[in-house]
Amino acid sequence: MKKHFSQTDLQSWERFTRANFINSLSGFKSLSLIGTVNDKGVSNLAVFSNIIHLGADPALIGFINRPLSAAPHTIQNIRETGLYTVNLVTESIYKQAHQTSAKYPEGVSEFEMTGLTEEYREGCNAPFVAESPVQYVLKFEQVMPIELNGTFLVIGSLQEAYVPIEIQEEDGFLDLAKAGILTSLGTSGYYKTEKINTLPYAKVT
Amino acid sequence: MKKHFSQTDLQSWERFTRANFINSLSGFKSLSLIGTVNDKGVSNLAVFSNIIHLGADPALIGFINRPLSAAPHTIQNIRETGLYTVNLVTESIYKQAHQTSAKYPEGVSEFEMTGLTEEYREGCNAPFVAESPVQYVLKFEQVMPIELNGTFLVIGSLQEAYVPIEIQEEDGFLDLAKAGILTSLGTSGYYKTEKINTLPYAKVT
Repeated sequence: MKKHFSQTDLQSWERFTRANFINSLSGFKSLSLIGTVNDKGVSNLAVFSNIIHLGADPALIGFINRPLSAAPHTIQNIRETGLYTVNLVTESIYKQAHQTSAKYPEGVSEFEMTGLTEEYREGCNAPFVAESPVQYVLKFEQVMPIELNGTFLVIGSLQEAYVPIEIQEEDGFLDLAKAGILTSLGTSGYYKTEKINTLPYAKVT
Repeated sequence: MKKHFSQTDLQSWERFTRANFINSLSGFKSLSLIGTVNDKGVSNLAVFSNIIHLGADPALIGFINRPLSAAPHTIQNIRETGLYTVNLVTESIYKQAHQTSAKYPEGVSEFEMTGLTEEYREGCNAPFVAESPVQYVLKFEQVMPIELNGTFLVIGSLQEAYVPIEIQEEDGFLDLAKAGILTSLGTSGYYKTEKINTLPYAKVT
């Protein structure tokens, strides 16, 4: 039995209750830590769940950055230095990932604050999260301001990927559940996943 | 042990293998059926996984529409009639949801082709999927063309939501796993979820 909520109902709710409802209504999300560095070499790590696959050819992945007043560092660092890492989150590190969303002042590294380990690789100044089993590097391509609410779609092109070979299937598909990768819901929910099935390309029958 | 894949490696792969890899690399996604109607009253239903939460105040939800040559109907109908429904997908209907991605010609209703049931509610000409336990209505706000690859970010504002009352927690959060809602991965993977935890708003300690 469904309950109906109108726009007016939702607008009458307390701000956090409304945000929790709306943010979980749209479904499960990718749970990722974005690692960046500014032009002074200070690293930053922030949890993002609004990651979006934009296309495979060229390989483009976007994320939504909240208004600058709420979340200035990641987008500023990306504009300054161009490369950033995305690190998928497992059950072993989701609490630390969540803690990166606390409003630490500029110049404080979330790595130090949460105990996650910075990992560096040649050719990329931005830090990886050593504890993450699936990591990739994006190169900044474009920021599209979303004027309706002051957020930004930040678009990057895929440069490098680091993946446990045993999760890759013959057709290229990565079974992230095998690496223990979680999915998130709303701003507070963390979920394990279990594969039901993979289905072949659908055809008109 | 991670394997490194460079951009050059990925570009050397067969097209579908590359697409499967890249599309699953960015993590778990919302699995949703979007119901629309054109100005002649013909309904359309299409599975989308690139749904993105844009903000709660105002309540905005976006999705990525592929280039018009590949996926013309949903975006065209939304521009024509303004309201569209989003219906979250469970284990009972994911095969039918997947089948909506077959390239049916214009004028053919995916409801008929897949056996999903059209449901109509006062004030919304677009069809809901009766079998879906969590449904909402968006009003078309804006299309942002993504010139890097010819896709579109389609933005809608939340108008109505229909949700089983037993999945809503005290703070507004919707535990979609309780309603059997799935998450998708890549273009072919379907996963059940199990809640590990919800965490309180993170604070600097």
